[in-house]
Amino acid sequence: MSMLKGAAVIGQSGGPSSVINASAYGAIKTALESDVITNVYAMQNGIVGLLNDNLFDLAKEDPDELALMKYTPSSALGSCRYKLKDPDEDETDYQKILAMFKKYDIRYFFYNGGNDSMDTCNKISKFMLRNGYEVRCMGIPKTIDNDLAGTDHCPGFASAAKYIATSVAEVYRDCHVYDKGMITIVECMGRHAGWLTAAAALASLTGNGPDLVYLPEVDFDLPSFIEKVSRIYEANKNVLVAVSEGIHDKDGKFIVEYAASDAATDAFGHKQLGGLAAFLANECKKATGAKVRGIELSLLQRCAAHCASQTDIEESFAAGKAAVENAVKGVTDKMVGFERKYVNGVYVCETKLFDLTVVANAEKKVPREWINEAGDGVNEKFIEYALPLIQGQTQLAFENGLPRFVNLKKIKA
Amino acid sequence: MSMLKGAAVIGQSGGPSSVINASAYGAIKTALESDVITNVYAMQNGIVGLLNDNLFDLAKEDPDELALMKYTPSSALGSCRYKLKDPDEDETDYQKILAMFKKYDIRYFFYNGGNDSMDTCNKISKFMLRNGYEVRCMGIPKTIDNDLAGTDHCPGFASAAKYIATSVAEVYRDCHVYDKGMITIVECMGRHAGWLTAAAALASLTGNGPDLVYLPEVDFDLPSFIEKVSRIYEANKNVLVAVSEGIHDKDGKFIVEYAASDAATDAFGHKQLGGLAAFLANECKKATGAKVRGIELSLLQRCAAHCASQTDIEESFAAGKAAVENAVKGVTDKMVGFERKYVNGVYVCETKLFDLTVVANAEKKVPREWINEAGDGVNEKFIEYALPLIQGQTQLAFENGLPRFVNLKKIKA
Repeated sequence: MSMLKGAAVIGQSGGPSSVINASAYGAIKTALESDVITNVYAMQNGIVGLLNDNLFDLAKEDPDELALMKYTPSSALGSCRYKLKDPDEDETDYQKILAMFKKYDIRYFFYNGGNDSMDTCNKISKFMLRNGYEVRCMGIPKTIDNDLAGTDHCPGFASAAKYIATSVAEVYRDCHVYDKGMITIVECMGRHAGWLTAAAALASLTGNGPDLVYLPEVDFDLPSFIEKVSRIYEANKNVLVAVSEGIHDKDGKFIVEYAASDAATDAFGHKQLGGLAAFLANECKKATGAKVRGIELSLLQRCAAHCASQTDIEESFAAGKAAVENAVKGVTDKMVGFERKYVNGVYVCETKLFDLTVVANAEKKVPREWINEAGDGVNEKFIEYALPLIQGQTQLAFENGLPRFVNLKKIKA
Repeated sequence: MSMLKGAAVIGQSGGPSSVINASAYGAIKTALESDVITNVYAMQNGIVGLLNDNLFDLAKEDPDELALMKYTPSSALGSCRYKLKDPDEDETDYQKILAMFKKYDIRYFFYNGGNDSMDTCNKISKFMLRNGYEVRCMGIPKTIDNDLAGTDHCPGFASAAKYIATSVAEVYRDCHVYDKGMITIVECMGRHAGWLTAAAALASLTGNGPDLVYLPEVDFDLPSFIEKVSRIYEANKNVLVAVSEGIHDKDGKFIVEYAASDAATDAFGHKQLGGLAAFLANECKKATGAKVRGIELSLLQRCAAHCASQTDIEESFAAGKAAVENAVKGVTDKMVGFERKYVNGVYVCETKLFDLTVVANAEKKVPREWINEAGDGVNEKFIEYALPLIQGQTQLAFENGLPRFVNLKKIKA
């Protein structure tokens, strides 16, 4: 164990979640309390803030206000979608970062985000190692998509899952009130991994679950879908379907592309998807003449802090805390993930370290054996996996009947 | 005060809300405990169930299970959108209803719904009066739209308002995390009255409010809208707008009709609206080149029981209770509404009776003087009005981390 005195910097990147700040706060609080960490800075808008010398000093925040981060959604430190170049091709950004590390005597680098962020953390970590600058780089995962390799699950997934299952149960109630029937399509996020859409099936535990669930892990066949929906509509009048934004046909073409072929792409080359629910609802209407409704959960599913899982909040906090504790102990170049145990049949979650190289840019999908044979639902293996994660209601404070979120002063470092 | 012994029947109609069952349960519980009410029946799917002799016996439900109605969204008794004809033109339905009243010795008729439902209740009440059948008819209001005449506010509005304000605050957080900026349009329900969209402005109390709010009470001008959004985008990078589905131009044409001219109409001749958020977002993108996102709150805003206002739940229950208590005392042909008082500056809500004739088919809009001069926001008069209504978090029970909703046995009468 080597003692390394110096400042820490923390940043957030990628799409936010409703508990990403619980992780950041876990790291910030632990860093502020550490004897060896001299200063705790935040990057304004992730790595972009570091590149532009735009840091703020977290010690200057009111501690009680700062504590509200634990229950505040969506990257309180600001986020970015900035992709670092391969250092073998272009070192410019890395040299800037090194200069910033030296300027502020930064010896601890914490990066809080999804797989692209773990890639950023990994690249910086390897560059600094090669260049002989001692800095401990730790990734703190966040992704509602739950698609990071290694870890049992990702901070942020459970809260989105809880919101989706709750909303689907409520929508089920709403669309089953009429005698005339309706076909309702609920669209969930998840380009390549179906974890979030699978969470819609948790609503079945309330007796208000979807009839069909389509994940991107299985090729989607539009005629077969229409035939199934029509059959259920004939039998029950009401049909509720959950679909992932990323469902695609056997040739890999996204179904939503059949609706809009001019989908834009983001900085990472990901297609910007949307409008799938409306498209499928319309196809169902054409086939059945039924009243239809397409509902896109959109951003709501990733920022609904008022419906977060307290289990997720506490685990997210623990991940941030473990990142700092391990870094102070001498660990570097790792991501903090989770390992699941059952003690006397009771779910227990422990933090575990994973190599950044292994995690970066890999994607974990829903295992095929957790999906039913027909490919239109999930089985009890998924339910057993997800159920412990969504337990507990958020302890979010309310003021004026509305959530009380953090307001940081962001005093420049 | 005349004592009238006999059975009671209760039905729900129209679009559901997250607290409509709290009202129904207030009536059911009070009726089950009454000495003069001999039986308590529910109409399966509102008036359609009564016409088809499809009633179920509420005394045969487990009382503890029945009590879960108070926290269960969306018309547990089933709903309908059935419009009774004018009795002067066609008596058929009324004669059927009269036959059913006689068959079950029904002397108390409670109808739980919006303005169309108050119209139904009014017509039945007047027909039975003219035909000398003694039955006490009471309307129990429900509408997230908050557009019933007379009453200070409507059961169901506050919970939808709380959900909208909470979600807008969360979406604000989400769409403000990036350094690159985004224009986000959130679409709320409300064809002719802007109460729900106005509720988005409550998010400002959390510091996360929309920049612009457009209600159907003010004519919408697309070029002026684009110009304002562009200006805010230039200045702040991020723009958050709340719009009502019912915004229209100065000629009364719905803005959404510019996107889709083939909007279907429902049984009451209302246009089925939708797709406005995506349309406006796209217009903003064309003008600014910004990243945009359209979010339609869709059914979520009227069934989100997990985010209901406990004030709304208790008031809704009280409305149902008062309907039965007053009917038993001899009152008929009235709707139970609310009167607001301030006792030592503290908001107090009391039930008050309104003539069904006055209420039926009238629409109460947001007063022009509660909307700012530019017509793109609401002022403190609206905030003062709405704020007391959204206080308190629902006491909804959770099981497996998910809401525990009522499951009725619905044993045929």
